[in-house]
Amino acid sequence: MKKSSPLYGVKPQVIKAPAYTLHAYEADIKLNQNENPFDFPEDLKDETFRRFRARAWSRYPDFVPDALRQKLADFVGWHKDGVLVGNGSNELLQATLMVLVNSRTRVGIPSPTFTVYQLISKVLGAKVVNIPLNPDMTYNVETLITKSQESGVGVLVINTPNNPTGSVLTEEGLEEILQRFPGFVLLDEAYYEFWGHSGLRVLKNYPRLIITRTFSKAMGMAGLRVGYMLAHTDLTTQISKAKLPYNVNQFSLTAAEVALENIDRFRPAIEAVLKERERLGRELAEMPGMKVYPTEANFFLVEVPVAPRAIFDELYSQGILIRDVSSYPMLSKCLRISVGTKEENDRLLSALRAGLAK
Amino acid sequence: MKKSSPLYGVKPQVIKAPAYTLHAYEADIKLNQNENPFDFPEDLKDETFRRFRARAWSRYPDFVPDALRQKLADFVGWHKDGVLVGNGSNELLQATLMVLVNSRTRVGIPSPTFTVYQLISKVLGAKVVNIPLNPDMTYNVETLITKSQESGVGVLVINTPNNPTGSVLTEEGLEEILQRFPGFVLLDEAYYEFWGHSGLRVLKNYPRLIITRTFSKAMGMAGLRVGYMLAHTDLTTQISKAKLPYNVNQFSLTAAEVALENIDRFRPAIEAVLKERERLGRELAEMPGMKVYPTEANFFLVEVPVAPRAIFDELYSQGILIRDVSSYPMLSKCLRISVGTKEENDRLLSALRAGLAK
Repeated sequence: MKKSSPLYGVKPQVIKAPAYTLHAYEADIKLNQNENPFDFPEDLKDETFRRFRARAWSRYPDFVPDALRQKLADFVGWHKDGVLVGNGSNELLQATLMVLVNSRTRVGIPSPTFTVYQLISKVLGAKVVNIPLNPDMTYNVETLITKSQESGVGVLVINTPNNPTGSVLTEEGLEEILQRFPGFVLLDEAYYEFWGHSGLRVLKNYPRLIITRTFSKAMGMAGLRVGYMLAHTDLTTQISKAKLPYNVNQFSLTAAEVALENIDRFRPAIEAVLKERERLGRELAEMPGMKVYPTEANFFLVEVPVAPRAIFDELYSQGILIRDVSSYPMLSKCLRISVGTKEENDRLLSALRAGLAK
Repeated sequence: MKKSSPLYGVKPQVIKAPAYTLHAYEADIKLNQNENPFDFPEDLKDETFRRFRARAWSRYPDFVPDALRQKLADFVGWHKDGVLVGNGSNELLQATLMVLVNSRTRVGIPSPTFTVYQLISKVLGAKVVNIPLNPDMTYNVETLITKSQESGVGVLVINTPNNPTGSVLTEEGLEEILQRFPGFVLLDEAYYEFWGHSGLRVLKNYPRLIITRTFSKAMGMAGLRVGYMLAHTDLTTQISKAKLPYNVNQFSLTAAEVALENIDRFRPAIEAVLKERERLGRELAEMPGMKVYPTEANFFLVEVPVAPRAIFDELYSQGILIRDVSSYPMLSKCLRISVGTKEENDRLLSALRAGLAK
């Protein structure tokens, strides 16, 4: 690059990297971002406003949000010093990669999965080793281990349940990886509440396991950006160094505290999503030519018998937004559909039936 | 490091780096974080709540906050594509360094200045070149340029007005640097509103200048974490790649929009701070043995005739919190005091007089 270019000095891998973009579609029914179709409860919104009004907005948040960390520690059953709070779990993932990777590090990433892991790794200059899922989209533990070993992977990022496939890494699979793979395992449990299984049970035995979770999905707080990390103190101490001071705003911290104090109030929404997931999966599977992958998250990966884009466009013209994932590796025939409310799913199903019949 | 260590694989420069920590002192009067002593106006809090209640918290923020970017563009007089919004301006600084620096990059940082520049640079593996201010704490443009050239600096980070010294880089000084220094200049204008001068006027002529500002200080929104960046589109396009999706929560975006729509409402607080700054500076300077550095920010750097820690402790015992900056380079005799309300400053002044008389 010429010295006169305004980009002279920008890291070449950044210039090469694609941006994570999302066309801003507007639609009545949003089944494209795996959001919770049930909002944060209204009375808990009031409680959050009440507490936040009592505090000066002009003052910085607590330097370390110890109140929320303690509540999280009590809630999950881990120690406070091993809990970090982030501006969404992605921020914690980014901070983790910042302290673990340099230009010689190989980051192992199952494929297909959530795009952001790859983007962050590349911006940081690491080499990405894509490790394919089985053709049925399940995790292949043996492949994950051997491919990581062969390629000298230092950090393995695993999303379970996995976006966009819905597949999961079992506890046995996770333990086998932790026993045989010597690097760090970053386990993104963003959809944990829809499955109910967590790597937390084995965390105490494996100091190189790092777990992230989020308030964005089951807790209905995507708009507020709160995630958390569970790891050993040795690691949280180092990862904090890459986390900016005051990284979570005080309003979101307040909402997260209110949510944790009223955790039972979020159960009905999760149950409703699980019930609809069962129904939606059954009805989708009955459609001619449609292949529905098993899911433990709040969305479905489906393979459709026609061009995915055509289905996407058809649904969008009817005010229903789903995610076209056909550009992902192995998913050229696929769409991703979040589980909505009963009414939303009904509208989706009839639009989909009509679309497939065309 | 042993392979069996839980930290094996963590970047050595991270392990070596100190954490940015702040002891969580509680006090009646907080003059330690350069916050705005006047809170976000109550009726604008109501308006923010009203707008935010109307929106589902369970939905992600806009992928790119174009509404706020456009309002910022109109407000400052720059083009929307050259505006980025961050989770505090530090996040934008971090994203910028992520795309500009690798282990061979030298980051030039005047000294003393805000600690976070150095921390981020070190975590990212860059080498830091500290460039001392003049003994009177003013910027030395010639030293900045020649030292940067000699040391092969690729990115120069300049805070103006500078925390913790209050000193400023004039527009002439900035232009001279931009003309003679071939790297990127990251200009942190967090305290801009208390000075009134900005590098924005020359930005159109210098595509390697990057300006950051914040809603945390003059706009009374430290608790909400909103910052913004002004740069050329070539650069904002690349820097966005290191910015996580949905990096600013919707509540803070809403508050920032409300603030910009009511910008005149923030003027009286700024005027009051400036008036108190003048008075506080005068009264401080009259104290025996006290040296007050000129400031264009909402705080003072003062050199005290006794151990700074003794003064800090004395004030703290009276419920007044200031910042002990005596561990900063060149500042072993110094304290930093934010400008508070008239009442707060009165209490500070009398406690300080009593403390110095001991």
